[in-house]
Amino acid sequence: MKESSLLQQIYKKSTNDDLILIGPGDDMALLEFEPNTLLCGVDQLIVGKHVTIDTPPKLIGRKAVARCFSDVAAMGGIPVGSLMTAALPLSTDEAWAMAVFDGAREHAAKWGGPIVGGDIASSAENAQPMFSVTTFGTIPTTAIKRNNAQVDDVIYVTGKIGNSIENHHLHFTPRINEAQMLINSIKISSMIDISDGLGQDASHLATNKTQLVINPTMVPLRKGAILPSAFSDGEDYELLFTSAMKPSENLATPIGFVQHRNANEPKVITTSGEDISNLGWSHE
Amino acid sequence: MKESSLLQQIYKKSTNDDLILIGPGDDMALLEFEPNTLLCGVDQLIVGKHVTIDTPPKLIGRKAVARCFSDVAAMGGIPVGSLMTAALPLSTDEAWAMAVFDGAREHAAKWGGPIVGGDIASSAENAQPMFSVTTFGTIPTTAIKRNNAQVDDVIYVTGKIGNSIENHHLHFTPRINEAQMLINSIKISSMIDISDGLGQDASHLATNKTQLVINPTMVPLRKGAILPSAFSDGEDYELLFTSAMKPSENLATPIGFVQHRNANEPKVITTSGEDISNLGWSHE
Repeated sequence: MKESSLLQQIYKKSTNDDLILIGPGDDMALLEFEPNTLLCGVDQLIVGKHVTIDTPPKLIGRKAVARCFSDVAAMGGIPVGSLMTAALPLSTDEAWAMAVFDGAREHAAKWGGPIVGGDIASSAENAQPMFSVTTFGTIPTTAIKRNNAQVDDVIYVTGKIGNSIENHHLHFTPRINEAQMLINSIKISSMIDISDGLGQDASHLATNKTQLVINPTMVPLRKGAILPSAFSDGEDYELLFTSAMKPSENLATPIGFVQHRNANEPKVITTSGEDISNLGWSHE
Repeated sequence: MKESSLLQQIYKKSTNDDLILIGPGDDMALLEFEPNTLLCGVDQLIVGKHVTIDTPPKLIGRKAVARCFSDVAAMGGIPVGSLMTAALPLSTDEAWAMAVFDGAREHAAKWGGPIVGGDIASSAENAQPMFSVTTFGTIPTTAIKRNNAQVDDVIYVTGKIGNSIENHHLHFTPRINEAQMLINSIKISSMIDISDGLGQDASHLATNKTQLVINPTMVPLRKGAILPSAFSDGEDYELLFTSAMKPSENLATPIGFVQHRNANEPKVITTSGEDISNLGWSHE
């Protein structure tokens, strides 16, 4: 793998987009960007951790983009453009690397945030291939933060939960459109995408004064998923949100409610009182 | 090193800035962003490649930011905000990682593009620590591209060239202010920052019809630098640009001129006719 030739090949196929004033090949990219706020975030994907070396490479690229775009959805945003990096050992098969970028580029463009630049570096021979995707976006109406669940709100989730590892984590579509439909129809007090596990991610919606209570019997389970492990599986990339208003049934399922929390009480419990605030992927 | 505690500590010290509407801790950051164009780029820094494990950690963070901001300068841009990622083995010393982020955060804020978010991932135990910095910026007047040197332009360089490895590569200040002073005083036809080596980077300024001719006796050399290796040392992070107008002597030194190029002629030669288009860091 030669950095320079790989870069050239990757960006030769670059998306044509009227918004891209300067595309790959210069020091930086320059985009037309209308509104007066900028949404930005970055996610890393390590081969051997988030995917395996046997994962089809186009699905690796797809997942690298989809994870980052899921964050855009969770903020109530629309992606506008993306940057992608790779750190790869020199011995990396160039066709494999190209396929990763192909998968990323195709899906980034399809979902509205084309890849406009990036960086490729060669890492040590024994290094795990790594990719990162940075996405920029806009907020059409209002940005939805975490940490703002209100007493008596209902907790909702889009789609289904659990057993993502079997198939879903490589094939999910970021809930960008669903988030927009929700925001345009009801007032959402807090929202997050479920990446680390329902229990842990729900804890991010709680405030100092609110506790989320989840009814396990109401949680929609993906095929092959079982409770309680579905609470900690993670990589669902579904939207978890709280609202005092009722969303369309097609968009989300109610799974619990928000109540007052006293200091030192857990942030998330089941209706039977079990603390599930820490269930999920341990970032250690 | 625990990802979650490191993240908390890193962003606890986050910059206060009125432009940051949503800072670290949510799915993405949200910035006030006035103009209608967005400049964006990303650079990776691998410990063991761009710096060593013995490099003082605050200087590692400083360099990670400075390299990316140097690209902003080379585009004629002003940084507005940054994202930073780390991929670190679990055994990484947390104080060391914090110091890297401290160095990055301090300099990003000082140079006008505070770190507003990022991502931390744990990599394999034998992995080299890696960082990336994404910067977004604005273009106050006009974006300066590469690939546009015109016949009879003079070639200029800011500062001095060569022997960056001794000291400069860890201590340089991105030429953001100098670029703005130049752009506000003369018309620049093409510009790049010298990262890979004067020879190779100069080749990016040439067009299909123009050739850059560099006079080695005019190239300002850094202390300890010698020709011809200064042409290939790289990591100078000085601005190399072409113009038909004369900049202030304080800002840049003339080192050559641009002439017509026939097909198959080298893009960059010395006044004695030597092809130096490929001198510099080999991206293989």
